[in-house]
Amino acid sequence: MFVTFEGPEGAGKSTVLRAVAAELRTSGLVVLETREPGAGVFGSRVREWLLHSESMSARAELMLFLADRAEHISRIVQPALERGEIVLCDRHADSTVVYQGYARGLNLDFLREANHFATDGLAPTLTVLLDLPAAIGLARAKGGDRLDAEPIEFHERVRAGFLTESRREPERWRVIDATQSAEKVIREVLALIRERM
Amino acid sequence: MFVTFEGPEGAGKSTVLRAVAAELRTSGLVVLETREPGAGVFGSRVREWLLHSESMSARAELMLFLADRAEHISRIVQPALERGEIVLCDRHADSTVVYQGYARGLNLDFLREANHFATDGLAPTLTVLLDLPAAIGLARAKGGDRLDAEPIEFHERVRAGFLTESRREPERWRVIDATQSAEKVIREVLALIRERM
Repeated sequence: MFVTFEGPEGAGKSTVLRAVAAELRTSGLVVLETREPGAGVFGSRVREWLLHSESMSARAELMLFLADRAEHISRIVQPALERGEIVLCDRHADSTVVYQGYARGLNLDFLREANHFATDGLAPTLTVLLDLPAAIGLARAKGGDRLDAEPIEFHERVRAGFLTESRREPERWRVIDATQSAEKVIREVLALIRERM
Repeated sequence: MFVTFEGPEGAGKSTVLRAVAAELRTSGLVVLETREPGAGVFGSRVREWLLHSESMSARAELMLFLADRAEHISRIVQPALERGEIVLCDRHADSTVVYQGYARGLNLDFLREANHFATDGLAPTLTVLLDLPAAIGLARAKGGDRLDAEPIEFHERVRAGFLTESRREPERWRVIDATQSAEKVIREVLALIRERM
């Protein structure tokens, strides 16, 4: 079971993912917590590069995300799924479609195709969208990387993009109101995962 | 004028490119000599990574080549063309189609689309294929990188791939017999470039 967590900055993805993983482990399940970009040796190299490079073109940035994704899926996610583990991933292919497509204007069809290629067709079993208004997310986010420096309109396009994507494949996506308390969000995500199992 | 040099290992691309650039400069032209992967700061990082990483998946490798290409075209090639310079590039998009597609089996249509995306649609004015039998090329190549370690069948697929590509767009490609002396090859390439000018 491959569960991805998506949503804008400040939605609480990492906190919720960590708590959900801990809770699932208490039921005796083996859980892999991972993220994109930046899992593994290859990934941390790409992540560092992406987060601290000021002047990269949007096209080059996209290709680095995809290189990271290809390695992450084939070396980390796919083997864990084959061992029967539950994989919880903080951001995945949908973030690329939303940030590079809806927010930065790259071609959506190409992005979908490139994701399909990079993942070799592996799609998440369940994608949890932690949704909240851009202004609330930004106020919550700690800051420090390039995305936080973008104007509010950028973050509004991100939110709208995620919501549009969630309606394209309603059987894969579940939208959760991330303005609720962390406890409530975690409980709802756990219920969704257990329902899918 | 954007001229790319393609061909298998040991075809003499770098030697011919250097000599042609020197000759064009004696006619008062401004020539930029460059290569893929690996021009500029971004490129040399990618090149080092690509040439010395043992275990990268073919998909991730492709994405790094494309990241390098996107940066190379937008930061180096396009500005030089706008300044009216002649750009001579050692390997470019066709090498990706041939090595990753014909030789390693990745999807050709996706590779063409991904190249189009990475280059933002910029195509070479002229592509010179330095063609020679795989066995001769391998014997000439110095060795030391990952490609030289591939079996002869791999290099035969490379040669056949380049020839097939050259027939798909005959107006862009010119095929030169690279078993001839370096002097003869250089003279023929210079004649082709002057004809296009």
